[in-house]
Amino acid sequence: MSRYDFKEHDPFAPIVYTYPNTALLHRETSKYQEIQIRQHPHFGRMLILDDVVQLTERDEFFYHEMLVHPVLNTHPDPKHVLIIGGGDGGSMRETLRHKGVESVTLAEIDERVVAVSREYFPTLRSGFEDPRAEVVFTDGIKHVQNPPRKYDAIIVDSTDPVGPAENLFAGDFYKAAAEALTENGLFVTQSESLMFHAEFVTEVHNRLKAAFPIADCYAQSIATYAGNWWTFSVGSKQLNPRTPQRRPRMATRLYSAEVHRKAFLAKSIMKKLAAGTIDW
Amino acid sequence: MSRYDFKEHDPFAPIVYTYPNTALLHRETSKYQEIQIRQHPHFGRMLILDDVVQLTERDEFFYHEMLVHPVLNTHPDPKHVLIIGGGDGGSMRETLRHKGVESVTLAEIDERVVAVSREYFPTLRSGFEDPRAEVVFTDGIKHVQNPPRKYDAIIVDSTDPVGPAENLFAGDFYKAAAEALTENGLFVTQSESLMFHAEFVTEVHNRLKAAFPIADCYAQSIATYAGNWWTFSVGSKQLNPRTPQRRPRMATRLYSAEVHRKAFLAKSIMKKLAAGTIDW
Repeated sequence: MSRYDFKEHDPFAPIVYTYPNTALLHRETSKYQEIQIRQHPHFGRMLILDDVVQLTERDEFFYHEMLVHPVLNTHPDPKHVLIIGGGDGGSMRETLRHKGVESVTLAEIDERVVAVSREYFPTLRSGFEDPRAEVVFTDGIKHVQNPPRKYDAIIVDSTDPVGPAENLFAGDFYKAAAEALTENGLFVTQSESLMFHAEFVTEVHNRLKAAFPIADCYAQSIATYAGNWWTFSVGSKQLNPRTPQRRPRMATRLYSAEVHRKAFLAKSIMKKLAAGTIDW
Repeated sequence: MSRYDFKEHDPFAPIVYTYPNTALLHRETSKYQEIQIRQHPHFGRMLILDDVVQLTERDEFFYHEMLVHPVLNTHPDPKHVLIIGGGDGGSMRETLRHKGVESVTLAEIDERVVAVSREYFPTLRSGFEDPRAEVVFTDGIKHVQNPPRKYDAIIVDSTDPVGPAENLFAGDFYKAAAEALTENGLFVTQSESLMFHAEFVTEVHNRLKAAFPIADCYAQSIATYAGNWWTFSVGSKQLNPRTPQRRPRMATRLYSAEVHRKAFLAKSIMKKLAAGTIDW
């Protein structure tokens, strides 16, 4: 292994992931975090924030498709979507593939993540040129507390719940998000690993239950996120997120109506999650 | 990190996994492989063969439940089961929880894996004391080529397809396994990661299709196996493995009839797998 090995530092993870033979393409320290871009022989370019891999060119679609499409296909006709975080552009790209979407607001706290991603990730940046997209550099929590409009969907595409993103997992934020949604709106957030962070997933679920009439959870295996059995937690004002209302009209690489249905956790696991008795 | 860090060497994996702060409890070189037992602060005791983690006390149930219960609950009344490999005892333990099972034959090539596992893994060894269990130290391929009886299920609980286990993934072996099964028998094998080894999963699927009327595939995220989106490939002589015939009558930690149904890959993925066009 070369001196370019990149070692991921995740304070929660009992396994350390090392990506051998990466080359450092860019490194800077923004106002909020350290940003690195590395090149890896298998995964291609990688976006790394504070030593945690956020995405790789090769496998980002697993995360972005599964974050965005379940709620957007549960809603019968989403027109206005808010993305919080997601400065790399991947979630915006997927959102804008829904032809009925009229506006996407990306509220990203760190301008430098957007600038660096636009430069280094050509396959993610298409949304930034779309006339339906607007980027606001702001704290997403403040945006949700004083929203310029109501949204049909709010998508939280954040880093881990330490540092800048911590408050994006707070109960008060979920309540503000529910207020900022239309009457059949949906909220979704990445919510860490069901394997390594089961207690945290449980907490998120309980906070969503306190803020929304319906709270639910689905998962997808993602190789570059420590713990891998990655969860996405949903708050819904009236629609059942387990049942897609529409079939996707775009060529996705992973997502389908069946993938959507299968991804939601089995009731036996949801029961343990709701009771706080996940025993692994 | 201490000098006891254990670094997993998987020649196929683009991520190297390191388990910090493990303590070496045992190490020996058997006729077939190097066997290590280590203690890890999160995962408990770990069985490591040729530097690849085979199981950990904490998360082995994900693998063993998902390897064993889908085929045994697809079959309406499995009585005679053959396990190839699985010298740690975990698959035998799960098989023997099916009260209708009259005999389990464990064909393990390496006596030392059984001896060391029985000593170090008290939660896995219960099956070795069960009067329905028989352990034969032999090459599983030879056992299947000249089986002493027909089996209702054959379960391959092997290491990666390099070294001693390589021939357990060959088409000829699958054909011999089909011959060794009763007329509605089922075959299942662990078959590596759908993320890191998608081409290999495709090959296994094609070889099973050539040997059985029905070939299918399901997956479970397992944090300690590189690539994590771990597949299990099924060959079936007539029963549809997607549909459990029976509800499990035991208290499993993960497996349920719904987990079984959801674990099978969506048809959109199966279509790509069968066509050899998995594009990630």
